[in-house]
Amino acid sequence: MGEQKARVLIVGTGGVGTLAAYALEQGGKAEVTAVMRSNYNAVQKNGISINSAQYGNGIKGWRPTRICKVVPNTAKENLPPFDFILVTTKNIPEISPTVSDIIAPAVTPHKTAIVLCQNGINIEKPLISCFPTNPIISSVSYVSATEISHGSILHDGQDEQTIGAFHNPDVPAQVAEEAAKRYIDIYNPDGKIDVTFDADVRRVRWRKLLYNASFNPVAAILRMDTPRMRMSSHVIDDLIRPIMKEVLAAARADGITDFPEDLPEILIRVDPIGSAFKPSMCQDIEKGNLIELENIVGEPLREGESKGVAMPTLRTIYGLLKGMQLKVKESKGMWEPKFGSENPYQ
Amino acid sequence: MGEQKARVLIVGTGGVGTLAAYALEQGGKAEVTAVMRSNYNAVQKNGISINSAQYGNGIKGWRPTRICKVVPNTAKENLPPFDFILVTTKNIPEISPTVSDIIAPAVTPHKTAIVLCQNGINIEKPLISCFPTNPIISSVSYVSATEISHGSILHDGQDEQTIGAFHNPDVPAQVAEEAAKRYIDIYNPDGKIDVTFDADVRRVRWRKLLYNASFNPVAAILRMDTPRMRMSSHVIDDLIRPIMKEVLAAARADGITDFPEDLPEILIRVDPIGSAFKPSMCQDIEKGNLIELENIVGEPLREGESKGVAMPTLRTIYGLLKGMQLKVKESKGMWEPKFGSENPYQ
Repeated sequence: MGEQKARVLIVGTGGVGTLAAYALEQGGKAEVTAVMRSNYNAVQKNGISINSAQYGNGIKGWRPTRICKVVPNTAKENLPPFDFILVTTKNIPEISPTVSDIIAPAVTPHKTAIVLCQNGINIEKPLISCFPTNPIISSVSYVSATEISHGSILHDGQDEQTIGAFHNPDVPAQVAEEAAKRYIDIYNPDGKIDVTFDADVRRVRWRKLLYNASFNPVAAILRMDTPRMRMSSHVIDDLIRPIMKEVLAAARADGITDFPEDLPEILIRVDPIGSAFKPSMCQDIEKGNLIELENIVGEPLREGESKGVAMPTLRTIYGLLKGMQLKVKESKGMWEPKFGSENPYQ
Repeated sequence: MGEQKARVLIVGTGGVGTLAAYALEQGGKAEVTAVMRSNYNAVQKNGISINSAQYGNGIKGWRPTRICKVVPNTAKENLPPFDFILVTTKNIPEISPTVSDIIAPAVTPHKTAIVLCQNGINIEKPLISCFPTNPIISSVSYVSATEISHGSILHDGQDEQTIGAFHNPDVPAQVAEEAAKRYIDIYNPDGKIDVTFDADVRRVRWRKLLYNASFNPVAAILRMDTPRMRMSSHVIDDLIRPIMKEVLAAARADGITDFPEDLPEILIRVDPIGSAFKPSMCQDIEKGNLIELENIVGEPLREGESKGVAMPTLRTIYGLLKGMQLKVKESKGMWEPKFGSENPYQ
């Protein structure tokens, strides 16, 4: 009798989530339930198309084991528990419903491991509050996968993830770490792809933040691609490098002591300069979407400032992003200006 | 025999310049030549319409003594010299032609006084280099006059200007000051309007900069009106107040010691909160125009930093404005991105 397949729920089936669904089922050790919203009807009818440099071109009509329109309620629907819930949605904690609200019906206490494939630091904290007995797993992904139309995925790179367990006070470290390693095993059973374990989750996340807290917001504010940003010495010298240095100082104050001094210089040059790539926060602003400003900018800022690190550049960027977020909220009817007497600065 | 009228050339005939033309000719002591570009044909045909709370509503078909399409060349055209050249154009010193280039044909050495009705500090420096023997006069204007269509001016406030002479090393202070006072006399012969002399030009300019270096760029970056900015505590607390405090510190380092500590709190609340006013830099960005970033942000920043004042918020704002200006230049064909090997941050 073969090992029982892991039951995986995927919440967030854009490029990254759909590619994960494919990888997990191809590995033969997982069966995937994918929650689909805007793309449900297209995938129900025609399945998923994937063009991937890594997993193959011309994949058509593929479907995971199950698709559904809402997160299943395992208790009410009398379903077997999920071993893993992979979350690849945007993470905007200041907006309801939160990630915890969304996944709660499918989380079995003491059982389900929650894999957060999202950027930023401290993203585990609200989940630990809501799910104190569940392992919370960190996936830091460098995959470039885009849903170019409903159910159609373009993956033009390699699936690269660094995975480890967040510290959850009521879950023994060994249990959490085993859950992380099992997730890697079902995702990468042959060990052939670059989806690997790293116990130092915080370090992995701070490192990616040097890029994400600098290029992402500046690109979003300027609505500018990264090669053009690098053509402007002001953008690099007055903005990107100072932010990276501030985040580096905050990471050091947070106990990450082994980042090399020239890490900013490496990350400034990490994108290819031949094509006009716009970071995701810039794409969100251009589409009129809410942005993930708290985990990517707010939390590193609060971590650093609370430890006495001067972060004036990132503080300024944060204020601008808050203003931009307010405009997006207004455009979505989530906030309404009140002219006149209710203005706090009358 | 009456006193000979002062010959005034006005360069820049938007709302402020046109209103000045009207005020100067109404005073009876000046004859105005107005350089008109996009609005020349409309004014040639129909004259100027003005609706002004101060100068009168329903003014129609008015014209200054002369209008012309280009700055006259007094030497070549054998014209009598101008006593004053009033400049109300945008001031974008990094772009050719500069203000000096534009007015040079009409400047008579030792004679013509140049009145700069433009914002920011150090705007006199390039003019002193080009016109070392001419008085350079500062007008800081709070007039709200808009050209709503070619030749049609809406003026919904009071004409308020503070005027004095810049220090020009080769022009005796008394000569420059007399020129400033004569300009006030021809503009405000009855002393009935709020166009007055203030010898401390630098102080007047720094004071206005507290508002202009903060609300203008932040509004432009966010494309947001000032009441909404004041509804976001982040915009005020993380951006506007810190910038005002940095500019205040730079002004103090520059020798302006009598600004009260609560000046930022006053200026934060200076705009009416009942209507959605967008500062001019925001209007320029929304129209796709170049912005006046160097005199309003770059120069106060360089003045402060050169004197050891920490100005990290304004430095960040400056970097963002430089990136925005680059995009405007690209849209106007004044700059072209070069993808690939010419990127300074390869």
